[in-house]
Amino acid sequence: MASKRQASAGSAIAARLKRLRRQLREDRATAVLLTNPVNVGYFSGFTGEDSYLLVAARSNVLITDGRFTEQAAGECPCAAVFTRKKAQKMGEAVAAVAKRRRLEHIGYVPASITVAVQKALAKSLRAAKVRFTAVKTDPGLPRQVKDAGEVAVIRRAIRCAEAAWTETVSWMAAGMTERQVAAKLDYEMMRRGASGPAFETIVAAGPRSSLPHARPTGRRIRRRDMVLFDWGAIVDGYRSDLTRVVFVGTIPPRFSAVYALVLAGQRAGIAALGAGKTGREVDAAAREVIVDGGYGEQFVHGLGHGLGRSVHERPVLATTAAAPLAAGMVVTVEPGVYLPGAGGVRIEDDCLVTDSGCRVLSALPKDLDRMRLA
Amino acid sequence: MASKRQASAGSAIAARLKRLRRQLREDRATAVLLTNPVNVGYFSGFTGEDSYLLVAARSNVLITDGRFTEQAAGECPCAAVFTRKKAQKMGEAVAAVAKRRRLEHIGYVPASITVAVQKALAKSLRAAKVRFTAVKTDPGLPRQVKDAGEVAVIRRAIRCAEAAWTETVSWMAAGMTERQVAAKLDYEMMRRGASGPAFETIVAAGPRSSLPHARPTGRRIRRRDMVLFDWGAIVDGYRSDLTRVVFVGTIPPRFSAVYALVLAGQRAGIAALGAGKTGREVDAAAREVIVDGGYGEQFVHGLGHGLGRSVHERPVLATTAAAPLAAGMVVTVEPGVYLPGAGGVRIEDDCLVTDSGCRVLSALPKDLDRMRLA
Repeated sequence: MASKRQASAGSAIAARLKRLRRQLREDRATAVLLTNPVNVGYFSGFTGEDSYLLVAARSNVLITDGRFTEQAAGECPCAAVFTRKKAQKMGEAVAAVAKRRRLEHIGYVPASITVAVQKALAKSLRAAKVRFTAVKTDPGLPRQVKDAGEVAVIRRAIRCAEAAWTETVSWMAAGMTERQVAAKLDYEMMRRGASGPAFETIVAAGPRSSLPHARPTGRRIRRRDMVLFDWGAIVDGYRSDLTRVVFVGTIPPRFSAVYALVLAGQRAGIAALGAGKTGREVDAAAREVIVDGGYGEQFVHGLGHGLGRSVHERPVLATTAAAPLAAGMVVTVEPGVYLPGAGGVRIEDDCLVTDSGCRVLSALPKDLDRMRLA
Repeated sequence: MASKRQASAGSAIAARLKRLRRQLREDRATAVLLTNPVNVGYFSGFTGEDSYLLVAARSNVLITDGRFTEQAAGECPCAAVFTRKKAQKMGEAVAAVAKRRRLEHIGYVPASITVAVQKALAKSLRAAKVRFTAVKTDPGLPRQVKDAGEVAVIRRAIRCAEAAWTETVSWMAAGMTERQVAAKLDYEMMRRGASGPAFETIVAAGPRSSLPHARPTGRRIRRRDMVLFDWGAIVDGYRSDLTRVVFVGTIPPRFSAVYALVLAGQRAGIAALGAGKTGREVDAAAREVIVDGGYGEQFVHGLGHGLGRSVHERPVLATTAAAPLAAGMVVTVEPGVYLPGAGGVRIEDDCLVTDSGCRVLSALPKDLDRMRLA
């Protein structure tokens, strides 16, 4: 099984490299230096840190250091591994590889490199007579559309997060702190095979649920509190991202109405998803419902975002998103209404865009009558 | 208590801003735009995301969006809060603040900004007739020297990690997976008040301990395995970072010798620490012991690194580090010897540099006879 899975990962990586090389040719670039760890992993399989991947027409070299040599050899069937010497600067290592592979021109990715690193690399490469210019097309773009293997891993990341949450909510009781509940949720995800939470788990009780990105605190959960959970798991490098709100004991009438409105908005957003639709259109479908319900001003963020190796990646579902969606994209749909000092409601599911609409990959209950804890 | 602590955090931030403004004057800059979230937090108290801090001689503005407005108002007593409109680009928001505050020249930090973001901001600021140039001195530099409040928080992050590890090791048994043990360790840290692990916790059993940055897998811990732990906690935004190796049942004679050598190297490194010493000198003190013992080639990384809001920050203890240390710096001391296919030993403590040497802040046992589990 393991070797079969490795072989299929190897062929997926070969397909990605082929796409990247086609893009390089269109850009008239000889080679591209990938510096963003997410892209390095996507095009090589490497899971370590502080390493660059240099992809050229006929070669593919992972430039790493002694801490990762052994790991890289095991993880990267499609790449040669170059181990940088201790005193060797990254730019000198890239120049050494360029020289050995006879590369006269290397592209960098302006969105993945700091001004300082770009300058340092440019200096070393200039000394080695290698041109170093920005590539036109972001090599991370193809990551938007997931292949079947990636969707399967995202599904596992969702199942893991769902099972962990169900367990945590049934265990949770008044008197526990937000932080304790978040710790339990993270533990339950990792016990089920997650390498960690997809981002810092949010557990926000009572009025704190009105902070869209609250961090868990020592605040205790009380009866009559609403509790907002925003959490996800990392499984084999891919992430899930879900939000649910539960009510401890009673549902205040005001939030019963807000909840129904957010849920209706979320369903409208999901119904609007599909290949060819723009992120703006999908956002508008959900937003219209919430604006009509009188809470447009309290929906202070975009409707959703792409999900994969990063928790926030392209595409974006927001008022500013003009690009059309494509089948195979995985996005969150997560409208929210926040009433400062009182509380907030957000409902989030993960959806696979298809030609005819979408498939909702997550499956936790969200009807209001299921969200009340006894 | 809370308000007293807040007041003292406010005065610490005021002192940091004062230092930063002095640095700005030396650089002949009117204002600096902080984009690295770690620096934004250090100079404002803000713990959210996607927000910049614009520090000028007479003003200090946190530029955020609707998700964080409420949180920013609560967390940043020393900064005004500017909420960016949904369709407003970050550069347009910075330009709007610059106009309102009559700033004609803003500096950026080349190490904290990507080429792409720098270009986008430059475009918006050019349109508003604001100069935008790189600052000479990194505003993050003062973070190296910790004030007493910061050291106290780092101590709490260390105590938290230590207590969680002691609990986890006494609970651990043969048959459990690396991942399960890592999940338990993270849970025990969070139960004790950590907001999360300081980095992805490493639990590497048997030969996998020879991978200096191994991720926990489904491999089960067996009798006669050695198990390497590298872990830390985040407490109130500050991190700890520790490494220990334990032996399940028996200690193979080969690793008994390697362990003694690494420990002797670590002690030599700790003894060499002190204000005025260079990172290179301290590294050399530890490395010499390991080279003399015949394992110099297997010590594939630097001796240590600064620790604080980031898990890796300046100063560096390595063969290339020429800068002198100063009292108040907090560094890890963590030599390691890795024998691919067999196993690895690394021992890591966190130390506060003082004028007369150092204070070792971490206190877990490390003598070999204490590292064998029955």
